[in-house]
Amino acid sequence: MNKIHSTAIISKSAIIGENVSIGAFSIVHDDVIIGNNSVIESYCELGVKNKFCSDRPLTIGNQSHIRSHSVFYSDSVFGDGLITGHRVTVREKTNAGLGFQLGTLGDVQGHCDIGDFVKCHSNVHIGNKSKIGNYVWIFPYVVLTNDPHPPSEVLLGCEISDFAVIATMSVILPGVKVASDTLIGAGSIVGKNVEAGWVVAGNPAKPICEIIKIKLKDGTGRNAYPWRSHFHRGYPLETVEKWLLEFDI
Amino acid sequence: MNKIHSTAIISKSAIIGENVSIGAFSIVHDDVIIGNNSVIESYCELGVKNKFCSDRPLTIGNQSHIRSHSVFYSDSVFGDGLITGHRVTVREKTNAGLGFQLGTLGDVQGHCDIGDFVKCHSNVHIGNKSKIGNYVWIFPYVVLTNDPHPPSEVLLGCEISDFAVIATMSVILPGVKVASDTLIGAGSIVGKNVEAGWVVAGNPAKPICEIIKIKLKDGTGRNAYPWRSHFHRGYPLETVEKWLLEFDI
Amino acid sequence: MNKIHSTAIISKSAIIGENVSIGAFSIVHDDVIIGNNSVIESYCELGVKNKFCSDRPLTIGNQSHIRSHSVFYSDSVFGDGLITGHRVTVREKTNAGLGFQLGTLGDVQGHCDIGDFVKCHSNVHIGNKSKIGNYVWIFPYVVLTNDPHPPSEVLLGCEISDFAVIATMSVILPGVKVASDTLIGAGSIVGKNVEAGWVVAGNPAKPICEIIKIKLKDGTGRNAYPWRSHFHRGYPLETVEKWLLEFDI
Repeated sequence: MNKIHSTAIISKSAIIGENVSIGAFSIVHDDVIIGNNSVIESYCELGVKNKFCSDRPLTIGNQSHIRSHSVFYSDSVFGDGLITGHRVTVREKTNAGLGFQLGTLGDVQGHCDIGDFVKCHSNVHIGNKSKIGNYVWIFPYVVLTNDPHPPSEVLLGCEISDFAVIATMSVILPGVKVASDTLIGAGSIVGKNVEAGWVVAGNPAKPICEIIKIKLKDGTGRNAYPWRSHFHRGYPLETVEKWLLEFDI
Repeated sequence: MNKIHSTAIISKSAIIGENVSIGAFSIVHDDVIIGNNSVIESYCELGVKNKFCSDRPLTIGNQSHIRSHSVFYSDSVFGDGLITGHRVTVREKTNAGLGFQLGTLGDVQGHCDIGDFVKCHSNVHIGNKSKIGNYVWIFPYVVLTNDPHPPSEVLLGCEISDFAVIATMSVILPGVKVASDTLIGAGSIVGKNVEAGWVVAGNPAKPICEIIKIKLKDGTGRNAYPWRSHFHRGYPLETVEKWLLEFDI
Repeated sequence: MNKIHSTAIISKSAIIGENVSIGAFSIVHDDVIIGNNSVIESYCELGVKNKFCSDRPLTIGNQSHIRSHSVFYSDSVFGDGLITGHRVTVREKTNAGLGFQLGTLGDVQGHCDIGDFVKCHSNVHIGNKSKIGNYVWIFPYVVLTNDPHPPSEVLLGCEISDFAVIATMSVILPGVKVASDTLIGAGSIVGKNVEAGWVVAGNPAKPICEIIKIKLKDGTGRNAYPWRSHFHRGYPLETVEKWLLEFDI
């Protein structure tokens, strides 16, 4: 049984799943597909079209939750369990896997490929043509860029691999590849590729140490990275079990 | 006499003071208390609940002004004279004193303690569990963080003491204590505690000089800090009189 | 023939041009002039007044497009071809020329002078009293400041000259003058004037090289700067022809 607020404006061609709630003053355009058990809060606009959109609809997976004042363009696909903060903007031609989280004020510029269980905190800016793997963490005020000498017609999207962590207020410069199991320290300006298993930091960012050198500040003396050795909240049970085996816990 | 716009959606259990104005398309949920003489502009949603909220209502003090497109969760208390810019987000379990100002796009993550007359300019991000004293200034694109090795379950909120000033685009790293009468220069990444009366700057931030070394660029040759020796706009008369006595003006 | 959505709230004193579209739940106050062939998307509020506004209306030029959730105050004038992203805020007493672009989450604090064809990407903060020339580019999370020793009553706006490019996450400190044909590298904290034809970068920003030393990464070996030698998308034909002559192309 759906709960569509009486002030919401829903296109008759939109395809709304079962047990979906849509808040006051929200707008759902044509060519929008919303999965079962999803919540769309108030003042959201879904399925905005521009000249770059193909006929492909906006698809929102099951068990999703889009918080208020958010805008999603058409021609993008999100797997089950999409969770957003308030006022996110997601442009066209972006594909994200399962469990994508995009915090308040997040801005995904479109034409991006995003894997499973990527978590972006508040106010993250993902530039056009970014490629992001699985289980990546991106913290507030991080910017993924794409133009090596702006303004130009050359767009080199960033590539961020599995389990990478990008801390607050960092910039990944155009075309930079951040390998798996890496940590970008807060306030880093990253102009060179980052090798797997390394921490970089600074402006310009330089290698600091291997990630296994960082210990958890919880009194246990355990390694803080790879973070999947100790941080499991919000991931599927079968994934966590794999991680526990990997680290022999 | 209240002025509630006809398109606003107001819960019958909300407690609205006298002479309150609520703009078009705004939503006020249950368990919201709005003080007298307050203005809630358009497209605001007050009293949003999530699983972290207790039964405590959202309380907004008298003479408050919340600008358009803002979102406040339940279970937080704001003293009189709360002023916000547009599109602020304030999560649950935050307490702020008198005269809290939070500029456009401000994002307070919840579980914060904020003193009296704290002024945050646009686009400030206050992480979970931050503690902020009285008369603190925080400028645009500042982030107060809390996780020493993200992602983890260890949360170390920052502590910012009275009269501290954090300039634009600075990051206060987890657990850092910024003492009273301090200035954090623009673009600082602050990983170590800041001593009272000092200026720090840089990435990573280092001590630069004592704040009394900085002179006002107004031709008078007076000290720029402590700023309360010369800047009084917007503070209560009795506070300003105390400051004048302190500096023997 | 105008298309005003039935839920929009339009003042009878607003002056709306021909062929204007206004989206759902938008509000247009008194003293607003909207040019012909313009689009105002949903949830926008135009003509907000505060105590700083004179009687001058908000004027939006022809062929403008203001995206959803945006807020414009009264007492500002924008030339033809204004284009905004979502959720921009533009305060009072700002004048911008032709073709001003202000990306999603842009925040113009008011009392600014902005020339022709200035393009701001997402999440740019233009402080009070900034002066920006023509053909300037400003990229995400850039802040133009104005208070040399915050908080104070001394406001020194920045001055950015024609064809300057300010890359992501840079701060221009109060009163700094950025000359023509300059590039501010990503993550720069710029405290000194920048000479014409130079690249600066770093925290604090230092001169790196002349801009003519940077080559395009498109395999042609051409100079990347001045960018008008190769980047012409979106500019008027007669302007581009002048640029082609200037560079003898």
